[in-house]
Amino acid sequence: MFITFEGIEGAGKTTQIKRLHAFLIKNGYESIITREPGGTRIGGHIRAILLNPQNSDMEPLAELLLYTADRAQHINEIIKPALSSNKTVLCDRYFDATLVYQGVTRGLDTGLIKKLHETIFNNLKPDITFLLDLAPELGLQRAWKDINNGSRKNHETRFENENFAFHEKIRAGYLELAHNEPERFCIIDASKDQDHIYQDIIDSLKGRTRFLIAEGLNL
Amino acid sequence: MFITFEGIEGAGKTTQIKRLHAFLIKNGYESIITREPGGTRIGGHIRAILLNPQNSDMEPLAELLLYTADRAQHINEIIKPALSSNKTVLCDRYFDATLVYQGVTRGLDTGLIKKLHETIFNNLKPDITFLLDLAPELGLQRAWKDINNGSRKNHETRFENENFAFHEKIRAGYLELAHNEPERFCIIDASKDQDHIYQDIIDSLKGRTRFLIAEGLNL
Repeated sequence: MFITFEGIEGAGKTTQIKRLHAFLIKNGYESIITREPGGTRIGGHIRAILLNPQNSDMEPLAELLLYTADRAQHINEIIKPALSSNKTVLCDRYFDATLVYQGVTRGLDTGLIKKLHETIFNNLKPDITFLLDLAPELGLQRAWKDINNGSRKNHETRFENENFAFHEKIRAGYLELAHNEPERFCIIDASKDQDHIYQDIIDSLKGRTRFLIAEGLNL
Repeated sequence: MFITFEGIEGAGKTTQIKRLHAFLIKNGYESIITREPGGTRIGGHIRAILLNPQNSDMEPLAELLLYTADRAQHINEIIKPALSSNKTVLCDRYFDATLVYQGVTRGLDTGLIKKLHETIFNNLKPDITFLLDLAPELGLQRAWKDINNGSRKNHETRFENENFAFHEKIRAGYLELAHNEPERFCIIDASKDQDHIYQDIIDSLKGRTRFLIAEGLNL
């Protein structure tokens, strides 16, 4: 099964992915944690270009194509082989992030972004996407706390440095996607404490899994 | 006018671009020299990933998308602004190189490559493309000579390290493109010495320019 985590900075994706991974392993499922951008060695080099605040003169179209290049390497090197060997893939950000960040806020045509995903990746979508939803004030507060205590890298703060209006648009963009595809998205209230968020994710997964088993997928 | 130079390594593109640039300036035309990949600051970072021999595990699709990302930055930052201010753009490699290198030898569907160029760049093509054609044996001999005398960087030898069959396919791929678009391509015999090559380019340009003036373009 292919499961992605989406949400603004500070929503708690990294923490929850680790906890879900531990849950799956404990229950006898093979699972891997990965991320975009930078889920591969070559993708790490691409990520460094994308997240370097000095590259603020990057053309939106070039940015989109770098994320897409990272995804091409990631899908072929990590995601597809893992799925083929029946591992569950837990991925921190994926195509929805591209659609929201590049589309909603960089002014790129979302039709173009979707068309590229169809043309290049045959529209490969996750089975489940957890949207960790919370107000940007709270998310940014958490993200900065992580930077100050050293658990988040300060040089990867390109998006954190954008203003509040930006993060509000991102949140709204994600919620719109979730409402358009309710069968794939689980919206999780990420303003709760991390134990509550974890429990909500596990409950959602169990609920979805019954549905997915009925659809012929296995967890 | 948008003029590109194509050909295998060691064909003499760099030398001839500089000479044509000097010719144009001397004749009162504003002209710029640029290249792909790496015609911009951000493109330089992308070029470093593409040409690093350590990245030989790069997926063909990721490679294609990195070249395309470089092109997006290059077109918007350099090529379009220069053309808009009536400068002649002399570009060392462009889309034809992508079509030949990624398509012919990496096994990518050339239909996909063309579709991406149409979708993303509205199929922006050069007015003239000089194909500096020569046998790979001679080209590689020259390229290695340049590396040995220090005028070519040794770490950018990813394609030089491929075998002869590879370079033969590249040559054949370029010639096929040239034969399919004779109104855009000028095939130049690059086995001659550099003064002869230069004269052939100038003669071709003058011939083409009359044609282009008749078509409403100005040089």
